[in-house]
Amino acid sequence: MFGNTFGRMFRITTCGESYSGGFRKDPAMPRELYGGQMVIVDGVPPGLKITAEIIQEELDKRKPGNSRLSTPRKEADRVFIYSGVMEDNLSTGAPIGMIIPSSDIEDVHIQQHKENRNLVRPGQASYTYYKKYGRYYDWAGAGRASARETAARVAGGAVAKQILDRLGIDVIAYIVESHGIKAAPVTYETAKANYRKNELNCPDLEKAKEMIDDLMMVKAAKDSCGGVVEVIAAGVPAGLGEPVFDKLSAMIAHAMISIGGVKGIEFGDGFKLAAMTGSESNDTPYYDKETGRIRFRTNRAGGLLGGISNGEEIRVRVAAKPTSTILQQQTTVDIAKGTSVEHVFASRSDPTICTRLYPVCEAMMRITLLDAIYMAEGYKKIASVIDPNWEQL
Amino acid sequence: MFGNTFGRMFRITTCGESYSGGFRKDPAMPRELYGGQMVIVDGVPPGLKITAEIIQEELDKRKPGNSRLSTPRKEADRVFIYSGVMEDNLSTGAPIGMIIPSSDIEDVHIQQHKENRNLVRPGQASYTYYKKYGRYYDWAGAGRASARETAARVAGGAVAKQILDRLGIDVIAYIVESHGIKAAPVTYETAKANYRKNELNCPDLEKAKEMIDDLMMVKAAKDSCGGVVEVIAAGVPAGLGEPVFDKLSAMIAHAMISIGGVKGIEFGDGFKLAAMTGSESNDTPYYDKETGRIRFRTNRAGGLLGGISNGEEIRVRVAAKPTSTILQQQTTVDIAKGTSVEHVFASRSDPTICTRLYPVCEAMMRITLLDAIYMAEGYKKIASVIDPNWEQL
Amino acid sequence: MFGNTFGRMFRITTCGESYSGGFRKDPAMPRELYGGQMVIVDGVPPGLKITAEIIQEELDKRKPGNSRLSTPRKEADRVFIYSGVMEDNLSTGAPIGMIIPSSDIEDVHIQQHKENRNLVRPGQASYTYYKKYGRYYDWAGAGRASARETAARVAGGAVAKQILDRLGIDVIAYIVESHGIKAAPVTYETAKANYRKNELNCPDLEKAKEMIDDLMMVKAAKDSCGGVVEVIAAGVPAGLGEPVFDKLSAMIAHAMISIGGVKGIEFGDGFKLAAMTGSESNDTPYYDKETGRIRFRTNRAGGLLGGISNGEEIRVRVAAKPTSTILQQQTTVDIAKGTSVEHVFASRSDPTICTRLYPVCEAMMRITLLDAIYMAEGYKKIASVIDPNWEQL
Amino acid sequence: MFGNTFGRMFRITTCGESYSGGFRKDPAMPRELYGGQMVIVDGVPPGLKITAEIIQEELDKRKPGNSRLSTPRKEADRVFIYSGVMEDNLSTGAPIGMIIPSSDIEDVHIQQHKENRNLVRPGQASYTYYKKYGRYYDWAGAGRASARETAARVAGGAVAKQILDRLGIDVIAYIVESHGIKAAPVTYETAKANYRKNELNCPDLEKAKEMIDDLMMVKAAKDSCGGVVEVIAAGVPAGLGEPVFDKLSAMIAHAMISIGGVKGIEFGDGFKLAAMTGSESNDTPYYDKETGRIRFRTNRAGGLLGGISNGEEIRVRVAAKPTSTILQQQTTVDIAKGTSVEHVFASRSDPTICTRLYPVCEAMMRITLLDAIYMAEGYKKIASVIDPNWEQL
Repeated sequence: MFGNTFGRMFRITTCGESYSGGFRKDPAMPRELYGGQMVIVDGVPPGLKITAEIIQEELDKRKPGNSRLSTPRKEADRVFIYSGVMEDNLSTGAPIGMIIPSSDIEDVHIQQHKENRNLVRPGQASYTYYKKYGRYYDWAGAGRASARETAARVAGGAVAKQILDRLGIDVIAYIVESHGIKAAPVTYETAKANYRKNELNCPDLEKAKEMIDDLMMVKAAKDSCGGVVEVIAAGVPAGLGEPVFDKLSAMIAHAMISIGGVKGIEFGDGFKLAAMTGSESNDTPYYDKETGRIRFRTNRAGGLLGGISNGEEIRVRVAAKPTSTILQQQTTVDIAKGTSVEHVFASRSDPTICTRLYPVCEAMMRITLLDAIYMAEGYKKIASVIDPNWEQL
Repeated sequence: MFGNTFGRMFRITTCGESYSGGFRKDPAMPRELYGGQMVIVDGVPPGLKITAEIIQEELDKRKPGNSRLSTPRKEADRVFIYSGVMEDNLSTGAPIGMIIPSSDIEDVHIQQHKENRNLVRPGQASYTYYKKYGRYYDWAGAGRASARETAARVAGGAVAKQILDRLGIDVIAYIVESHGIKAAPVTYETAKANYRKNELNCPDLEKAKEMIDDLMMVKAAKDSCGGVVEVIAAGVPAGLGEPVFDKLSAMIAHAMISIGGVKGIEFGDGFKLAAMTGSESNDTPYYDKETGRIRFRTNRAGGLLGGISNGEEIRVRVAAKPTSTILQQQTTVDIAKGTSVEHVFASRSDPTICTRLYPVCEAMMRITLLDAIYMAEGYKKIASVIDPNWEQL
Repeated sequence: MFGNTFGRMFRITTCGESYSGGFRKDPAMPRELYGGQMVIVDGVPPGLKITAEIIQEELDKRKPGNSRLSTPRKEADRVFIYSGVMEDNLSTGAPIGMIIPSSDIEDVHIQQHKENRNLVRPGQASYTYYKKYGRYYDWAGAGRASARETAARVAGGAVAKQILDRLGIDVIAYIVESHGIKAAPVTYETAKANYRKNELNCPDLEKAKEMIDDLMMVKAAKDSCGGVVEVIAAGVPAGLGEPVFDKLSAMIAHAMISIGGVKGIEFGDGFKLAAMTGSESNDTPYYDKETGRIRFRTNRAGGLLGGISNGEEIRVRVAAKPTSTILQQQTTVDIAKGTSVEHVFASRSDPTICTRLYPVCEAMMRITLLDAIYMAEGYKKIASVIDPNWEQL
Repeated sequence: MFGNTFGRMFRITTCGESYSGGFRKDPAMPRELYGGQMVIVDGVPPGLKITAEIIQEELDKRKPGNSRLSTPRKEADRVFIYSGVMEDNLSTGAPIGMIIPSSDIEDVHIQQHKENRNLVRPGQASYTYYKKYGRYYDWAGAGRASARETAARVAGGAVAKQILDRLGIDVIAYIVESHGIKAAPVTYETAKANYRKNELNCPDLEKAKEMIDDLMMVKAAKDSCGGVVEVIAAGVPAGLGEPVFDKLSAMIAHAMISIGGVKGIEFGDGFKLAAMTGSESNDTPYYDKETGRIRFRTNRAGGLLGGISNGEEIRVRVAAKPTSTILQQQTTVDIAKGTSVEHVFASRSDPTICTRLYPVCEAMMRITLLDAIYMAEGYKKIASVIDPNWEQL
C-alpha cells in the first residue's frame, strides 16, 4: 500500500535503490547481495518458460551505455531468477522473484553524494523525499527515485510479455518527439518495421537523424531535453477494463504517470480533441466482413471508449521532461542552512531519458493489460455459467 | 475490485445508472427508490458536519440545465443523507451513504433507447459495454457510462471538501480551452477571483465570451466540441504521495482519466516539456524567509517532483473530448445485423462537457488528495515514534 | 479500506446503522430514506435474475421475531433493489445497490440510548467505538456494531447464492451447540434434510428440543447464552484458494470472525486435532471410480489442505458468545464520571444469537467462495492459454 | 492479489520455495542466489535500525534443529538485508528487501521428490496444489506450502517488532497444549517469565516435561501430534481495528489461519463461551484510578469487543494439526494411475509443529497489529483536525 506494488491480479512488488548496498559491504558476503533491484511477480500462470536470458533481453533495452545518447555509466543489470521456476525452466504458479544486483556501488560516488546531501537537486525528487522521509531520506543516487528502479519494472514486464505473446498482443513503444522535433505519424505496421533501426528508437528514420544531431548538440552544451514516447498495444480484444474508476484508460494512466520523468499522457488524439467537434472526433463504426467484427474507420479514441478497449489499437503518448541531471552549474539551496548555492551536480548524465524510457513504457503497458485480462477472464467465465450465450446479442 | 471503488483510505464506492429504475416501477414504492446514483463514503472522520445542503452545493455545480450551454434535461439531483451522520448533523465515523434519485425516468425515453439497442453509438461506450457484458448490457441511457454517474463522485468529493477546507487545501477547476480557443494563463489568485463569473467557468473573462459565442454556434450546428479543464490544488503540503507506483501524480492521473470523456492529462508544463531543455525546465529552489520553507522560482513541475508534492500549487490540465452525443445524423452499424445505418441518436445534448466536467475534476482531486493525506499521516506518526526529530535535517 | 468492504472480485460495500435516520426526520422525505442498511454488490455477472423477492427470502431468515427465541422487535427488513438490474429483472453487470430501510426508528428508543450514552455496555462495542471515534461515537443502538448491519451481508450473500446455485455449490449453516448442549455429528445429507425443521435450525431434532427448553429457561432468567454454528459448503471444486496469505481457509476465517459475536472458528476437526497424532489425523486419499476423482476416506481437514479446497465438503464451526444484551442489572462504569453504576440496559433481547447468526454465516461463506472462484477462473483461463493440457498430469 | 502479500499499510510480500534453486545450479552464480525465501517489507518508517543480526534473532527461533523435538535438517536460515537500509544501518523509508537463501538444496532430495511426484502426500498440500497448478505444480519439498515459507513471515515480523517495541507493545506466543496434554492457564507475566525455559516453549514448566516425554514417545513411534499455541499481545491501546469487515479480530484470524497447519483460532474464552450465559461471559468494566482508564475485571473477550481492541491483553489460541509428514507407511494414491499405493514419504520429520510455529504466530500478530496502528493513526490525526477534543467525551 505504500506504493511499491502495482497490479491487482498480475502484480509486481519491488524494492531496491542505487547505493544502499555500499553501506553494508562485507567481504564474507557475495557482492551480488550488496543490493540493487528486486522484484516479486505474482499471478504468473504455471507452465511458462522463464529463464534469465528471456528477462535479460528486455532489460538490455533499458541499460545505460547502449549508445552515444545515454550515460557512460556501467550498469550490467544482470538478472538472476530466484524463485517460481522449476524443472525445464517452467513456472510453477508460485511468485517469481528476481534479483538485479547493482554492479556499480563505488565508495567515491557515495562520498560525492554525501557531500551534497543537504543540497536540493533541481528537478529531482531529493527535496520531496526529504520532506517525506526527513533526515533519514536516501541522499545517495536518488534512492527509490533513481532510474535504476525501472529495471524491476522491465523485469516484471518481461514476464507479462511471455504471456501476452501467446495471446497475440503486441506492445511497442518508440520516440515520436525529441526537443520539439516531431516525427511523422505512423501506422503500427510502419512503427513495428522501423522502430529499432536507430539508437533513438524512432520509426521516422529521417527525423530520427535530425533528433540525434540535435541531441548531440544538447549533450555538448551539457544540457538535456524532453521528448514524447508513443506506445501501441495491438491485438487487444474489445471489452477490457472495468467501469467506473478502474477503466483500462485510468489504469494505463496510473501505470505510465508512475514512471519517473513522465509528466503527461494522452489517448488517441488526446489534447487535439479539445479543438475538434464531435462530428469530427467520433470514430465511425462499421462491420468488417473479413474479421467478422465491428471496427472503426478512424481511431481518434486511441482504442478506448468509455475507458474500455474497443478492439482497435490502443495508442497513447507520454510526455517526458528533460533529464533533471544536467552537467551545468545550477542555482539551488542548502536545506540545512537555507542559503543559496551554485553547484554542478553530476559528471555524467543522459541528454534525454527517452532512449531508456521506451522499454519501461512497454513493460508498464504489458503489466496493465495482463492484469486487466485476468480481471476480465474470471468474470467472463462466470457470465458463461449464467448464460452460455451471453456474448451473443 | 470491479472498478466501482476509488481510494485506499478515503474511498468512495458507487452504483447506479440512468434508467434501471424504470424497469421496477411499483406504485407501492416511493419513487425516490426507483433508482439513480448511490455512494458510500468510507474513511470519514467523526465530528464532521454533513448535511444534505452542504453536499447539494457541490452537486448543483454539475447539474444540467444550469445554462444555455448545457442540456435542457431536468435532473434535480437532490441528495439524501442515508447513514453515518447523527446528532447535530455530525459524522460518527461510520461510512456516509448518500442517495441521489433519478427524477427523470420516463418510459418514452426507455422506449427510444430500446429501439436503438442494437445500434453502436458513435464515440460512446455502448459498443465496449456490449462487448464486456454481452446481450445483457445496459442499453438505456448509457448505463454506468452515463454522465449521471459523476453525481456520486461529486457527492463524495463534497465530503472530502469539508475536511480539506479545515486543512487549508483549496481545489478549483476551470475551463482554459474550448474548441481550440485558449484562455490566457492565470495565477491561482486570478483564477480564484474570476472563475465563477461566467456560465463557462472560465477565468479569462474576455476569452470566455468568445468561447461562449462559439459554443452557441456549435450548438446551432447540432454539433459539440472539446476543451481543456485546468485544476489547481493550493495549500498542499510538501511530501504527499508514495513512491514508486502510487506517486501522487499517478493517483491523480488515475482519478482524472477515470472521468468519462477525459482523454489526456498533463502536470505543470506537461507536453510542452518535450520541447524544452533541462536548464529551462528545472524549477530553481530557494529558501523563502517569509514562510520559512523551500520554494521554487517557477512551477513547471506542477507541484510534483518524483511524483511527490513539493509544496507548490499542484496544477494539472485534462483534455475533454467533444460530447459524443450530437444531434446530427451519423453513420453507424447495427450489431445484430452487421448492416450500416444512418441515425440521429438524440434530441438533446450539451455542446461541451466542460461546463459539467469541472466540478467532477474538483471532486476527484479532493478525494485523491485526502486519501494521500491519510496515507501520509499514519506514517508520519510512526516515524515520530522512532525519532521525534525525524523531520529535521 | 476502513473496513466496510469485503471481497476482492466479488465484493460488498455496506453502510448503515440502527438509528441515524431518527436524527434527520423530515416530513417531506419518504421514510424509507430515513436510514437503515445499504449495500453495493460489485462483481455481479450479467444476465442474473435478481428481484426483491429473491433477496427477501434470505433476509427473512435473519429477521427478528421469527420465533419465541428471538427479540420481539419489529424489523420488517424489506429490501429494495436500487441499481444494476434492468429488463426482466436481469442484472446488467453493473453493481447492484440495495436498500433495507429501518422501520423501527422511534424517538423513545433514541431517547433511552441518549440517557445512557456515557455508560459502557458490558460485552458490547460501545466502549471500543468510543475509544475509536471519541465523543462523536454512535451511542444509539450500537451503531455499526448493531446486529442490523448483518442484513446488508445477507442481502449480498443472497446475490452470491444465485450464482453458486448454478455452479452446484450448496452452503448450509445450522446450530450444533447451545449453552453447552451439543448436537450429534451429522452428515451433510442429514443436516440438509433436517436443519429447517425447528425454530433453532438444529438438525439433531431430539437435542433441539432440549436446547429450546433450555433457552426458554435462560430467557425466563433474563439471561442469554452462547452456541456453535456449523457451516458446510458442498460441491466446492478442488483447487480454490490462493497461497500463501490468502488461503481459502484464511479468507473464510476473516469472513466469519468479522461477524459480530463470533469468537472462534475451526476447520474440520479443528481444536480436536491438538490431541491427535498424524497417523490419526491424516485423511487417506483414494481414487473414486464413480466420480473419476481423488477423494478422501475421512474429512478431518474440513475440505482444506494447505488452505486450498480438496474437493471434500468444507466444514467449519464458529463459536458464538452469549448475546451481550441481557435484561438483568449489570455493573458498569460511567465514562464521563469514572463512577461505577448498576444498570439494566435493555427491555428486549434474544436469549441466543445463533437463531439469527446462521443465515449470516451462510452469506459470508457464499461471498468468500464466489470471490475465490472469480480469482481462480481468470487464472485457469490464462493457464490454458499457456498449455491447454495444464490440468492433466 | 494471488495471495503472496499480507497487510494494508504495513505489508509483506514474499516468494520462494524449498528446492527451485536446485534446477538452476550454475557454477558462475553465487549459491546464495540459487533460491530460498525472499521478502519485501513495505511501510517501514525512516530512522529504524535494521541489521541482519536483529532479524536473525527472530529467525533463529524457528529454525529446525534447535532441539530433539525438531527435524535434524540443516537450514541455516541466514538472512541478508538487500535494500531499504543505509548509513548506520538506519531505514530510509524505502521497502526493506531481505533474502534468506536455502542452504540445503541437494540433488538427492530433489530426486526423491521426483520419484514420488505423482503420489498424493496425506495431510499435505500436494494434491490441492496439483489441482490448482496442474502438471506444473511444485512437487519438490512442498513448494510454497513448505514450512520454510514461514521464514519470510518471521523476517517481516522482526521488522514490525522493532517498531512495536518502541510503542510498548509486546507479543509472545507459547505452547499450551500438546497431544492433548494441557498446560495450566497463565497470566501474561508468568508466561513472559517462563516461556523460554524449555525447548517446547511452554510456560507451565511441569506440564512441559510431561509434554516433552510424550513427544519423545510420539517421535519414537514415527508419528507426530498436534497442539495449541497461545498468543498474547500486551500493551495494545484501545480502539484498534476497523468495523465492519476488517475488525482487528478478523485480521488476526486471517493472519493466523494463513499459517500452514493451523486449523482453528479462538479469542479469549473462545469456544468455551458457547456453554456460558451472558451474565457469566460479559466482562465487567470499571474505572482504574491508577492508570486513569477503563479496564475490565475479567478478559473473557480476549481484549476485543466488537472486534476492536479494548485495552486489555489480546489473547488468542490457535490449533495446530499434527505434522502431516510422518515416518510411517501410509496408504495413498498415484494421481497418474489412479491406483492405491503404500508409501513412507520421508526420512525426517518433526513430532510437532508447535516448536517452530510459535515465532511465526508472533510474527503474524505483530504485522497485523502494526498494520492496524498505521490505519488508526492517520485517521486519528484527521479527527484531531476536525476537533482537537474529539477524544474527550
